[in-house]
Amino acid sequence: MVWADLILTAKDKLAKNIIMVIGDGMGPAYTTGYRYYMDNINTPQVETTIFDKLLTGMVSTYPVNSQGYVTDSAAAATALSTGYKTYNGAIGVDVNKKPLLTLMERAKQLGKKTGLVVTSQINHATPAAYFSHNESRKNYNEIADSYFDDKINGHFKANLMLGGGSKYFIRPDRNLVSEFKQADFQYIDDLSKLTSLNKQQPVLGLFAEVGLPWTLDNKNENHLLAMAKAGVRHLENNEGYVLLVEASQIDWAGHSNDIAAAMAEMQDLAETLTWLKNYVENRDDTLLVATADHSTGGLTLGANGDYRWQPEFLKNLTASPKSIATKLAHQNTAISAQQLTDALGFIITDQEANLFIGRSDEKSIYEQIKLLIDSRTNTGWTSGGHTGIDVQVFATGNGAKAFNRHQTNTDIAKQLFLVLEGN
Amino acid sequence: MVWADLILTAKDKLAKNIIMVIGDGMGPAYTTGYRYYMDNINTPQVETTIFDKLLTGMVSTYPVNSQGYVTDSAAAATALSTGYKTYNGAIGVDVNKKPLLTLMERAKQLGKKTGLVVTSQINHATPAAYFSHNESRKNYNEIADSYFDDKINGHFKANLMLGGGSKYFIRPDRNLVSEFKQADFQYIDDLSKLTSLNKQQPVLGLFAEVGLPWTLDNKNENHLLAMAKAGVRHLENNEGYVLLVEASQIDWAGHSNDIAAAMAEMQDLAETLTWLKNYVENRDDTLLVATADHSTGGLTLGANGDYRWQPEFLKNLTASPKSIATKLAHQNTAISAQQLTDALGFIITDQEANLFIGRSDEKSIYEQIKLLIDSRTNTGWTSGGHTGIDVQVFATGNGAKAFNRHQTNTDIAKQLFLVLEGN
Repeated sequence: MVWADLILTAKDKLAKNIIMVIGDGMGPAYTTGYRYYMDNINTPQVETTIFDKLLTGMVSTYPVNSQGYVTDSAAAATALSTGYKTYNGAIGVDVNKKPLLTLMERAKQLGKKTGLVVTSQINHATPAAYFSHNESRKNYNEIADSYFDDKINGHFKANLMLGGGSKYFIRPDRNLVSEFKQADFQYIDDLSKLTSLNKQQPVLGLFAEVGLPWTLDNKNENHLLAMAKAGVRHLENNEGYVLLVEASQIDWAGHSNDIAAAMAEMQDLAETLTWLKNYVENRDDTLLVATADHSTGGLTLGANGDYRWQPEFLKNLTASPKSIATKLAHQNTAISAQQLTDALGFIITDQEANLFIGRSDEKSIYEQIKLLIDSRTNTGWTSGGHTGIDVQVFATGNGAKAFNRHQTNTDIAKQLFLVLEGN
Repeated sequence: MVWADLILTAKDKLAKNIIMVIGDGMGPAYTTGYRYYMDNINTPQVETTIFDKLLTGMVSTYPVNSQGYVTDSAAAATALSTGYKTYNGAIGVDVNKKPLLTLMERAKQLGKKTGLVVTSQINHATPAAYFSHNESRKNYNEIADSYFDDKINGHFKANLMLGGGSKYFIRPDRNLVSEFKQADFQYIDDLSKLTSLNKQQPVLGLFAEVGLPWTLDNKNENHLLAMAKAGVRHLENNEGYVLLVEASQIDWAGHSNDIAAAMAEMQDLAETLTWLKNYVENRDDTLLVATADHSTGGLTLGANGDYRWQPEFLKNLTASPKSIATKLAHQNTAISAQQLTDALGFIITDQEANLFIGRSDEKSIYEQIKLLIDSRTNTGWTSGGHTGIDVQVFATGNGAKAFNRHQTNTDIAKQLFLVLEGN
C-alpha cells in the first residue's frame, strides 16, 4: 500500500454508467472449471482468468425465507434488480405480488439510458426482473407485452434490447415488433447489423425464436461479446446508462448437465468481461459488476473418488453435444465409433459406440454423449436443477470496492441504487 | 471510505503473531451449508456466520501441473506451508522429493514459538506438511519420529502439539512420548488438563489413538475451540508465535458423505474462528488467516432437480450417524422405526425402517442412515474423494488486506513468509 493508492481511493468518483453482468447458473465450480478448461498445458503455470482478475467477494442467493435456501432465476434476478427477497418465480414483484421499483426503472426516472443484452429470449426470467413485473416468469407473452406497454414518464423502459425471443414478439394475437417499429425503434434480426446501428434510435434486436444458438455451434464472433460491444456503444450518452448483460445459457447447459456446452458459454462470457474490463478501466465514470444468480446442476470438478478432472477432452468438439446428437439421430445407419470420434474429437472405442445401439431419438443419443464426456473428463452432477451454494461477485471501475466482501444478493441492488442516487 | 480509514491503512503494522487456520475439505458448499444449518428459522432474515464476516477472497488449489487439477491434502498443505506446488502425497518436499523450508521452520529460525492444534492425529498430512518432510503422507511413523528427531538450531520445531495420534507416538519400536517427556515436554492425554498447562514448558497433548471423536459425539466444550484457546495462551511471548489450527475432520465427514458430521465439525471450527477473531481484533500484532486445502465429497446443497435443502433435519441427532450405526449393529433385535426416530431426531416411517432389514454390520447401517439423512435434507454428493473447486480465504488483523483477492494457495504461503521477514 503506497500513498498514491490512498489518494486514488479517496478520489474515487461515483459511476455515471453501470454495467451489470450476470452469468446465469455460474456457481464457483463453473469459474474454477473454466480456468482449467482454458489452461495452456504447454506452460508450467495455470493461467489466471478474467474471473480471477475481477474477483471481489461472494454472495448468498437464498430467496425469501418461506421458500427455503435454493433460489430460482426469477427470485434471484428480482433480488439483484430491486433489493428485495421474493418467492421463486416472481418477476419484479414482492411476496404479495406487488411491483417493486427496479434498478432500470429508477435509472430511467433519472434520465439515463437503459438496455439489456442476453443470449436467452429477452423476456426470460433474468432480464424480465429488471424491466417488468409479473407474478410468474412463465407468463412470457405478458412480459413481452409489458416491454411495449409499460412506460416510465412516457418513455419505454429500455433503449436497447438484444437477444432471442421473436416467437414471443411476433405472435398471432399481437405483433410487438411492428408496434416497436411504429414507435420509432430500429429492429434487427441479423447479428451482422449490430455494427451499423443508428445511435439516435432505440433498438430491438431479436436473433432467434427463443434462445440464441449454443456458442459451440457458432462459427462467428461470440454472440454475447458482439451484442455487449454494440450495446455499450449504442447507450453511451451524457446522462449515463445502465446495461444488463446476461450469459443466459450457462444455466441451460447446467440444467442439461452438459459440461462441454457450459464451458463454451463461459468462454463467451469471459471474452465479454475481458472487453468490458478494458472499456471500464480506460474510463473514469463506469462501474462494472458481475455475479451469478445461483449455481446449476450440482456441478463438481472430479467425481467417483477419482482425483482427476480432464477438461482437455472438451477442446476438440466439432459442434455442441446437442447438435451432434441431432445429426446422428437423423441418419439411417448405425452410429459408429469413428463417427463419434470425429464428432467429439477424442477416441471412442467400439465398446463405447455399442452403448448407442438402440438409441435412435435425439434425446437418448444426447444423454449418452454427455455420459461419455462426463466419464472422460470425470465431471460430476447431482441435479437437473439449482443448488444453494454461494456465488462470486466480480467488479472493477468506479465504486468497485463496495463489493469487496461477503454479502447477500439484495445488497448488490441496494449498492447500485445508492450509486444511481449519487450517494 | 473516510480519511480515518485511510490513515489506519497506512499505519497497518506487520503482524508479530500468525494464526493459520485450515478447514480441511471445506469448500464453498460447506460454508454456505453451515449458514443455513445455523439459520434461526424464527427470524425473517438468515443470520450471517463468522465465515461471512471474515471472507476476503478465493484460492485455487491445483497441485503441480503433472498432477492435474485436483489436489490431496498433502500437496495442498505443502503449498500453504512452503509456497511451492508439489505432487499429491508430498509432505513438505518438492517434485524431486527435496525438503522445502516451511513457514514453521522459518518462524523457529527467527526465534518465534510455533504450535499445532488439530482434530486428526498430529502427524496427519496437513500438520505434517508444516513441521516435517517426507516423500509420502502415509509414512506416519517416520513423520512422528521426525517431530522428535529434526531440530532447527537445536530446538524442537514445535513448542506445542495438540491433537490425536498416540498410536503413532507410543509404539512397540519407539516411545516418542517418553522421549519428549525426557526432553522436558509436558505430556497430557486428557483435554481437561488444557487449562492448567505450564507456560514455561513445551507441550505434547495426544487425546486419542488416531483422530479425536466426532463433534457430534462430544458432550463437552468443542475440541478444536478448547485446544486453540490453550494453544494461543501457551504460545504468547515477546518474540511472537505461529500457530496452525486445523479442523481436520470436516474432510473426513466429506469423504464419508456424512452431512450431519460435516456440519457439526463446521460448528466447532466456526466457534474457534469466532474466538480467534475476537482475540485478534483486540490486539494490534496478530494476523489471522483461514482457508481450506480443497473441497471434499462433491457436496451440493440440493440435488435431484429439487430446489430444496433442509438442514433442519440435522439438528436433533443424539449422536453421530457412525456412532448410531455402531450402537444399532450391536443389538440382537431388529432395527425399529421408533429406534431410528429417537436416534436421528426426525420421524422415520416403517417403510424406511424396512430398508435396514438384512443390514447387521456397522458399515451397511451407517450407509443406510446417511441415505435417509441425504434424502430428508436433499443433500447431494458426487465423490468419496476431493473435487477441484476453488476455496475461500478469510482474514482479519494486521496485514489481512493482502488476502483481499483471488490467488493460488502458494501465494498465501509467500505472503506469510513476507510477514515473517518483516516486509
